[in-house]
Amino acid sequence: MAANESVAEPHRLTPKGRATRDRIVVAAAQLMYDHSVAGTSLGDVQKAAGVGPSQMYHYFEDRQSLIRAVIAYRAQGLLDTLQSDRGGLDSLEALRAWRDFIVDTHRQRNCEGGCPLGSLVGELAELFPECRGDLAGGFDQWEAAIRTGLHAMRDRGDLRRKADPDRLATALLAAVEGGIMLAQVRRDPAPLETALDEVLDRIEDLRPRRAHAHR
Amino acid sequence: MAANESVAEPHRLTPKGRATRDRIVVAAAQLMYDHSVAGTSLGDVQKAAGVGPSQMYHYFEDRQSLIRAVIAYRAQGLLDTLQSDRGGLDSLEALRAWRDFIVDTHRQRNCEGGCPLGSLVGELAELFPECRGDLAGGFDQWEAAIRTGLHAMRDRGDLRRKADPDRLATALLAAVEGGIMLAQVRRDPAPLETALDEVLDRIEDLRPRRAHAHR
Repeated sequence: MAANESVAEPHRLTPKGRATRDRIVVAAAQLMYDHSVAGTSLGDVQKAAGVGPSQMYHYFEDRQSLIRAVIAYRAQGLLDTLQSDRGGLDSLEALRAWRDFIVDTHRQRNCEGGCPLGSLVGELAELFPECRGDLAGGFDQWEAAIRTGLHAMRDRGDLRRKADPDRLATALLAAVEGGIMLAQVRRDPAPLETALDEVLDRIEDLRPRRAHAHR
Repeated sequence: MAANESVAEPHRLTPKGRATRDRIVVAAAQLMYDHSVAGTSLGDVQKAAGVGPSQMYHYFEDRQSLIRAVIAYRAQGLLDTLQSDRGGLDSLEALRAWRDFIVDTHRQRNCEGGCPLGSLVGELAELFPECRGDLAGGFDQWEAAIRTGLHAMRDRGDLRRKADPDRLATALLAAVEGGIMLAQVRRDPAPLETALDEVLDRIEDLRPRRAHAHR
């Protein structure tokens, strides 16, 4: 992943070094999520991760390197929700289950904090061009995973030929991000549910006619 | 508007005072859009607006008062794009024209900066509860204006009875916000176009059968 290229070649770390680096990234991600990026100092991260300044600088040459590692960590976290737990999004049932998972996640945290990746966009995209590229890369990977499932559905005949998996994947990702933002400001998961359901209903309407007859 | 309540009763200002206050808010909004809220000091705003500290504190008792005035200004700006220029969103043509307006606006600025209101969410919603409330109020007004147009379409028979204007308005607003965010990180208006078109196509599919026959 592009985000890792600048970050002290983490694949060459010892297991212990890797664990320390991961601890720093996880602590930074949580602090930045809770208090914004601007509200998180390197000192805060050191304290939360239990490391000293020299360890910090061993793994991250500057503040931007750490932020980029956080973006990579958040992007991977979102991909993991698609792949390991849920076994791909290649059926309407899987899409609905994924929808429930996202809604439940935000409901459980009272809709605070927003999307772990999307909430970084407003603060970083214009100030740090490299971070913007990393954020785009994270969304690209997420969208590609959604797209793959929709293509599989169409190839299998679960969607009509006229259905466009690429466009539907973009619409679904936008619904996730826009829906989470509205849920966050309202402290209510309802707009997220509605935004996702409207796109999922559209996908359901694109099933072959015979599938509709079985309802 | 709730956002104005805290802000030194602007309706009691003289025309000259009102103009000075507006100049401060416009300058602050632009700086916060270009450099983030955290990256904008009160000194930066004073310099850009050509006012001194005493004028600043006359109109805004603290930093949060100024931020809230910026939110109110941004929310009103979005409402104006729906109401004065475009004459309401009560037809498919008006919705498509509004879609073109949003896409063109972001294309012209190379998709930089994001939504004037939405780009504030990530930075403010968790740190300033009153700002979160103001942001929610701004989105509520925007959504209500969209909803009004969709209700008019259904009442007039341009949408089937089964169409749900409230849900469609939420989905459309989420598509705007999620689509703008994806356009911003990719520096490409395509995801915004796609996200909006997928919801608009869904609305078009909800026209009465006879309308479809005329296509």
